[in-house]
Amino acid sequence: MNWYHQACPAPSAVHRQLAQQRQTELTKPLGSLGRLEEIAVDFAGWQATALPELSRIAVRVFAADHGISRRGVSAYPPEVTTQMIANFANGGAAINVLSAAQQADFAVVNMGTFSAAVASPKVYNLQLAAGSADLSSAPALSPELVEACLAAGQAQVDGLDCQLFVAGEMGIGNTTAAAAIYAAHLGLQGIDVTGRGTGIDDASLAKKIALIDQALALHADQLDSALGILRCLGGLEIAAICGAYIRCGQRAIPVLIDGFIASAAALLAVDINPSLRPWLMASHRSSEAAHELGLRALQLQPLLDLGLRLGEGSGAMVATPLLQSALQLHSQMATFAQAAISENT
Amino acid sequence: MNWYHQACPAPSAVHRQLAQQRQTELTKPLGSLGRLEEIAVDFAGWQATALPELSRIAVRVFAADHGISRRGVSAYPPEVTTQMIANFANGGAAINVLSAAQQADFAVVNMGTFSAAVASPKVYNLQLAAGSADLSSAPALSPELVEACLAAGQAQVDGLDCQLFVAGEMGIGNTTAAAAIYAAHLGLQGIDVTGRGTGIDDASLAKKIALIDQALALHADQLDSALGILRCLGGLEIAAICGAYIRCGQRAIPVLIDGFIASAAALLAVDINPSLRPWLMASHRSSEAAHELGLRALQLQPLLDLGLRLGEGSGAMVATPLLQSALQLHSQMATFAQAAISENT
Repeated sequence: MNWYHQACPAPSAVHRQLAQQRQTELTKPLGSLGRLEEIAVDFAGWQATALPELSRIAVRVFAADHGISRRGVSAYPPEVTTQMIANFANGGAAINVLSAAQQADFAVVNMGTFSAAVASPKVYNLQLAAGSADLSSAPALSPELVEACLAAGQAQVDGLDCQLFVAGEMGIGNTTAAAAIYAAHLGLQGIDVTGRGTGIDDASLAKKIALIDQALALHADQLDSALGILRCLGGLEIAAICGAYIRCGQRAIPVLIDGFIASAAALLAVDINPSLRPWLMASHRSSEAAHELGLRALQLQPLLDLGLRLGEGSGAMVATPLLQSALQLHSQMATFAQAAISENT
Repeated sequence: MNWYHQACPAPSAVHRQLAQQRQTELTKPLGSLGRLEEIAVDFAGWQATALPELSRIAVRVFAADHGISRRGVSAYPPEVTTQMIANFANGGAAINVLSAAQQADFAVVNMGTFSAAVASPKVYNLQLAAGSADLSSAPALSPELVEACLAAGQAQVDGLDCQLFVAGEMGIGNTTAAAAIYAAHLGLQGIDVTGRGTGIDDASLAKKIALIDQALALHADQLDSALGILRCLGGLEIAAICGAYIRCGQRAIPVLIDGFIASAAALLAVDINPSLRPWLMASHRSSEAAHELGLRALQLQPLLDLGLRLGEGSGAMVATPLLQSALQLHSQMATFAQAAISENT
């Protein structure tokens, strides 16, 4: 049995119930805080305490290049992957701003880029390969590389002390890999899952769809398992996030999923290890239309729907204050008894 | 010309444009931060600066009793209004927890309750009347009382030094008053606008709808103006919020509208003074179904949809971190030039 097949513990039913009971006692009509009440109950189960709190958030941005990016499927050239790693290292990207505001434990994991590594204390340079292969003409990753990427995600999570994990991704071309994963996993075609990513024009969109269909046809006999999908269509960073998510569940760390690409990793992670499912939350609905298909397959209701499509973990980090509000309300509000307020008649 | 008819200034078009330009230069695909980009541009216009920030938030919870509450339209008895004022004064309510987390300037304004006032440095005890009259059998407020309530809202805002205003409300029975206002303003009937408020059963819901229809019929010839609607159907707190909102626009303070009841006040405020419109933002879509009708009439897209229906300003305060994230991203992210990143091809 591989490490990633080992079961995740179940959240504490006892503490979920204690939190549910407390919600009935707080000075508000029951249910009037909607999703925020559910969040408090979820965290009670995750932290095995009736009064959970959220102050230690870890963010890991997994970055990699994609062979498919040389086929013109992105509005940006492939060198932007490495340029953005440098931007992360220098604190200039969206995810840096959001992580700093939450005092999150932030780092980048370079899984493998075309260009030379960026040396920085903020970057783990694993460089397991010089990007993935072009998924439209070959398997994107070797079986050994899939295992190494999953293990890299595992190792990152093993190094964390946190109450919430956010995975971000950076990789020019990775909406193509992610869309192909959605299609393979959900039994769909290129047209059903392909969007404009960073903002491509109609001609590039048509090419992107055709390349995805070509990949689905080429690898058709390998796509009946999550590991086969990862190997044929995956990016290095997507496989690493998949491993990281599974390890989070095994370590009882809840995961706040970012957007379209992170959700592709989540789909495969739950397929590999279904006991991970109760440790996942969806942060937002991306403006990449097929994201909704993934969220539905995961049976997750996103917290936000703000037209975000940046990736990097940014959507998840925008949502974290909602989680904190939910937990503050849960632990700090007065009860009806404390406030001597007449209850529901 | 009454004070509330005086025009609000227009947000700065120049600074909106500067902010829009900056958004094109930040290290992300243009548009990839969705609504967060629009928020930054809105605040640039409101604050007349290319780099707006949001640290000073003012919260005023306007509380009042309602004659209609004696007819059994709420799941809670009328004395809960005053009990909740005490809870606000003691820091135990949801809005206290959320205001404290944002270090907001928080106070309660008791516009008029059945019970004796709660003495507290956190409560302005105006007590302009012992609640409103039963709107199903008489005008809820006198013309003089409407003017006094509007002026009370104005005076509260005149005392503020803030970059964002949140009005909350507390008043057992006030979803009935608000629903009647929606119906009168939008030309609808009780059935179209009435929800379960704090959580009433089917019998109480039927009674609530019937009482609203009774009120609409009784006051039919008085409901062709916002001031007529306020007088016949309004609560003291709803009229005060209406005045506060108008004064915010006049003072160039943006308003983050809370839920169903606050939106009733916003509908009438914009009707009284259309130049207020560009100073309004909607924080969330309430689970009170008719809220959506009001948001559409105001042409406002809410930031959140989390099934909230507590009032007090709580939904607005849950949304404020999204505004802060938007402004932090806008001002702190690196530009393509600073980060030496290749631009969109």
